[in-house]
Amino acid sequence: MGNGPHAKLAELGLTLPEVAPPVANYVPAVQSGQHVFVSGQLPMAEGKLLATGKVGAGVSAEQAKDLAQRCALNALAAVDALVGLENLVKVVRVTGFVASAPGFTGQPGVINGASDLFGAVFGEAGRHARSAVGVSELPLDAPVEIELTVEVA
Amino acid sequence: MGNGPHAKLAELGLTLPEVAPPVANYVPAVQSGQHVFVSGQLPMAEGKLLATGKVGAGVSAEQAKDLAQRCALNALAAVDALVGLENLVKVVRVTGFVASAPGFTGQPGVINGASDLFGAVFGEAGRHARSAVGVSELPLDAPVEIELTVEVA
Amino acid sequence: MGNGPHAKLAELGLTLPEVAPPVANYVPAVQSGQHVFVSGQLPMAEGKLLATGKVGAGVSAEQAKDLAQRCALNALAAVDALVGLENLVKVVRVTGFVASAPGFTGQPGVINGASDLFGAVFGEAGRHARSAVGVSELPLDAPVEIELTVEVA
Repeated sequence: MGNGPHAKLAELGLTLPEVAPPVANYVPAVQSGQHVFVSGQLPMAEGKLLATGKVGAGVSAEQAKDLAQRCALNALAAVDALVGLENLVKVVRVTGFVASAPGFTGQPGVINGASDLFGAVFGEAGRHARSAVGVSELPLDAPVEIELTVEVA
Repeated sequence: MGNGPHAKLAELGLTLPEVAPPVANYVPAVQSGQHVFVSGQLPMAEGKLLATGKVGAGVSAEQAKDLAQRCALNALAAVDALVGLENLVKVVRVTGFVASAPGFTGQPGVINGASDLFGAVFGEAGRHARSAVGVSELPLDAPVEIELTVEVA
Repeated sequence: MGNGPHAKLAELGLTLPEVAPPVANYVPAVQSGQHVFVSGQLPMAEGKLLATGKVGAGVSAEQAKDLAQRCALNALAAVDALVGLENLVKVVRVTGFVASAPGFTGQPGVINGASDLFGAVFGEAGRHARSAVGVSELPLDAPVEIELTVEVA
């Protein structure tokens, strides 16, 4: 078994999903110079949201952390489809939006679901700048959305 | 008639607005390396918001889509004033913030107002990475705000 | 006294704080190419939030402007620790998230606390692209969060 990101994902028991086709005049990811900019990813699996609702109300923080991991996996799939994950030099920036019930302030713990995945797959190269914010509503009533920027070779 | 972005805008019956002067220690757009970063644009026309309120309550999704187009047009005006729109190589990233009434989850349809404009004006070079989120409040009670990053020659 | 950013901060009576160690698989700031991307900064001082609550309710707009300045100072500390503030070429992009009580639409005035600091410290090089949005909840009930991107030598 190799030690690239694909091998690491397999070790973690994870598989890159298919990338959903664009539904409007935008694309899953764009390369510009040394960077790949990934569209905001929802916790979709096979074309459906794994959960809907607000974190701190219908969705628990622990469940939302798993959903954030799924968003991150979808983001990696978008990078892989565009340039190949083995060309990722480092994870640069992650912005995590958490659809939050009033009074829920545990956004960092939720977004750790994404950050931990990047750390597990890429090690030092996975350590990124990050913002976590709570928002009132996300598309399709998704509980989490992750936006990713990476540097590529 | 040429086939550059200015000609394309004219074909669409659109005119680039004047760029509003900065109201604080920030500017409408900044170039850094190959990229121009545009400040978050509100649906202003001649110094006034075209509408105020929350999408899904006082503002309909369809109206908000038109407002998102206006934000996008203002963003292009800021790029044009800084480097000339004909030097735009590609649209890279769009982040769309929609001031959303509770339960409104149609943010993607609203932000299509911006995405569709970029597609119509730039074709393949207009296909960008995008995030759409719903927020509780926007400056001056604006219904939509669009943040843009483009690559320039 | 020199005229670099450290001297300017001293003139303003400000000191760069210690950078808080990362609490998850992310870091305060990442360099990629010519840019440093700084993680979303909260108004922390010596490991504690200077205030909690929503702007327009428990926290006034004026107080929130001061908190935004603190976020900006923390962001500069993160840049300084990574590459040295004297290597900052220009401030590129600022995104300001304001935890907003219903009906509070003065986000730009709040984020001026950050923008004004960048202008005071860096002059022309401190003039940046900016977005200000109101969100429902921020981590740990912080009233403001500032995300920063700068160009470095």
